[in-house]
Amino acid sequence: MKELEARIRKEGRIWPDGMINLTSFLSHAIDIDFLDRIAQELAAKFADQPVSRILTIESSGIALAVLTAQRLGVPAVVVKKARKDHIEGGLFQSRVYSYTYDGDTTLLLAKDSLMEDDHVLIIDDFLSRGEAVGALLAILRHAGVSVAGVGIAVEKGFEGGGDRLRESGVNLHSLAIIQSAEDGNFTFRPQP
Amino acid sequence: MKELEARIRKEGRIWPDGMINLTSFLSHAIDIDFLDRIAQELAAKFADQPVSRILTIESSGIALAVLTAQRLGVPAVVVKKARKDHIEGGLFQSRVYSYTYDGDTTLLLAKDSLMEDDHVLIIDDFLSRGEAVGALLAILRHAGVSVAGVGIAVEKGFEGGGDRLRESGVNLHSLAIIQSAEDGNFTFRPQP
Repeated sequence: MKELEARIRKEGRIWPDGMINLTSFLSHAIDIDFLDRIAQELAAKFADQPVSRILTIESSGIALAVLTAQRLGVPAVVVKKARKDHIEGGLFQSRVYSYTYDGDTTLLLAKDSLMEDDHVLIIDDFLSRGEAVGALLAILRHAGVSVAGVGIAVEKGFEGGGDRLRESGVNLHSLAIIQSAEDGNFTFRPQP
Repeated sequence: MKELEARIRKEGRIWPDGMINLTSFLSHAIDIDFLDRIAQELAAKFADQPVSRILTIESSGIALAVLTAQRLGVPAVVVKKARKDHIEGGLFQSRVYSYTYDGDTTLLLAKDSLMEDDHVLIIDDFLSRGEAVGALLAILRHAGVSVAGVGIAVEKGFEGGGDRLRESGVNLHSLAIIQSAEDGNFTFRPQP
């Protein structure tokens, strides 16, 4: 998505530890119209499938998941990072490393938030090493529902997580794939 | 909002510790169409004001904040709970007790995510003792921007936080005010 790449070039910041900061439009301050165009692009990538539900993980992917769900006319489910959250009834769980907490956290999903015949699309704003998506896929596999694929706004291609998912057969679409982010310059993987 | 009250009566759960669980439609599994009607009602409450930006706090209020921002045609800002979040540049900060972490957490807002002439509307899904809203108001006061008010989906009226805010002059609108939630029965404060 050219507009997304241009925005990353213009506003993206690269931290000394390699963290890429897109908070000025994607996750902290949110340009709703722009995020909705990203959602529209993602919805179009999966338009050939009978997606029945969006799944995301708190918290930075929630805004994009909500707008994509709205575009597709389906509900969204936000998988919680376990702490004191009260979710009633049966739970699906999965462990994942969290950058936010700098440690493992347990992902929680209420069993009754998925239906047996669901066809689920995973949405997130960022894909790096792919651990969060891997944990969500594990939950969906455990739940026995089918997976439409994974839609991502920005993939850090040089981390390899996206390519590992593609190689394992996951139907993954990322709208911008950052190939390198050195010396403050972003280069992107060419996409069809 | 009658539809919201009906949905709380039907799907709301009251935990032994008094926690009210509305995860089945409001924050965990999200009924986007319904949440958008809530957003539309909140937008209407503040239609007489030149709202320029929505402010919310991660993570359960993000979905409603995004849809309300979309209805009003303005950007949204998600205040972060401080952990390892990278937000560049100057920061506004405020301390608040977090139920999620069962302890104090620091709220972070990038200074450049607000403009001097902003007229900010705070949106959240839930208001209980009002600590989160109080911390957001403190940040906005410190930032020197004007406040349109506070829009809430569900207020726990019996906790008193909403009335304390109203008494202090805050322009607060809650679409459903739970007056009591005993023995599994919800009663609501009548609203004009």
